[in-house]
Amino acid sequence: MTSISIVGSGNMSQALQALFTRAGATVQVVNHGDLASTAIEGDIVVLAVPYTALTEIAGTLGSKLDGKIVVDITNVLDFSSFTPIKLPAGSAAAELAAAAPNAKVLKAFNTNFAATLTSGKVESAPISVLVAGDDADAKKTFGEVVTASGAAVYDLGGLDRAAELESLGYTQLLLAGTNQIGWTNGFALFK
Amino acid sequence: MTSISIVGSGNMSQALQALFTRAGATVQVVNHGDLASTAIEGDIVVLAVPYTALTEIAGTLGSKLDGKIVVDITNVLDFSSFTPIKLPAGSAAAELAAAAPNAKVLKAFNTNFAATLTSGKVESAPISVLVAGDDADAKKTFGEVVTASGAAVYDLGGLDRAAELESLGYTQLLLAGTNQIGWTNGFALFK
Repeated sequence: MTSISIVGSGNMSQALQALFTRAGATVQVVNHGDLASTAIEGDIVVLAVPYTALTEIAGTLGSKLDGKIVVDITNVLDFSSFTPIKLPAGSAAAELAAAAPNAKVLKAFNTNFAATLTSGKVESAPISVLVAGDDADAKKTFGEVVTASGAAVYDLGGLDRAAELESLGYTQLLLAGTNQIGWTNGFALFK
Repeated sequence: MTSISIVGSGNMSQALQALFTRAGATVQVVNHGDLASTAIEGDIVVLAVPYTALTEIAGTLGSKLDGKIVVDITNVLDFSSFTPIKLPAGSAAAELAAAAPNAKVLKAFNTNFAATLTSGKVESAPISVLVAGDDADAKKTFGEVVTASGAAVYDLGGLDRAAELESLGYTQLLLAGTNQIGWTNGFALFK
């Protein structure tokens, strides 16, 4: 059975708890404030925190992340102007990979609104979870558990492709932030 | 009645002819090779050509594009490696706007596969046409005719947002190019 640790306790954390529980995985939730004093039990560690906390968390956890599959779900934007922020590393996921060099970093879930992760659906379609990362085995393990939740998983390629996932995540946030779509649907992908 | 000129005669041109005909618009098709000798009748000029032809076409048409709504539908990638090409201007649409400074340039249709423009559907949903551009009146005129075709139109904002549309177009091409989706569906957007 796959074990998942979810860092953070906000709405994305709660939605991912629902998804991974539906997949039959063991789920540990670690509050951001308890990180230093808590053993990380999961083979997969999902950082369900804002972008601004990523590097600090990687520093706090340090070697506890070595060998783990670490999933970055963040979107990076200036919420005052609702414009994207271009990161020198190319993506938030690339920044995280630099801060946790012995972790197997994946980008995923940033293109799925919380409500859809909870329900598993966009309208009548299964949610589409787009993933990028350099470690093929890590993507396989991640893909199997997410597929078990009922979601469709798509592999975008290496971690370089996190830039496109972050662009798509931003686009969906922009559409909701401008009231052109709601927060309970969004993009679906049909084969 | 809105009049449309479509430059190019390939599969995207044919699909857009179907879409605009469905919308009740008058459609003129101009072959790329006949541009210099043909009067451009449309208020909206859709350049249904590869990215590599955009600047040359803008040069050939010159002042014939002044005041026109000009729609860039291109995606920019290295087809040998299937990787995105980063343009110094930020997007193909920005390059076109620089080459046709008196045109009202919009980015649209690059996130819709030809088959879906022809049918008007992704699976059972109406197609979603995402548009970006700096001229609000141009987007309104464009939005009205595309909506009349049965499509749902979403406004991403100014032409700066063409970068996100090109990223999304690339992502969809990558998914089809790696056989994870077919060429007759793709992304749908649900409110």
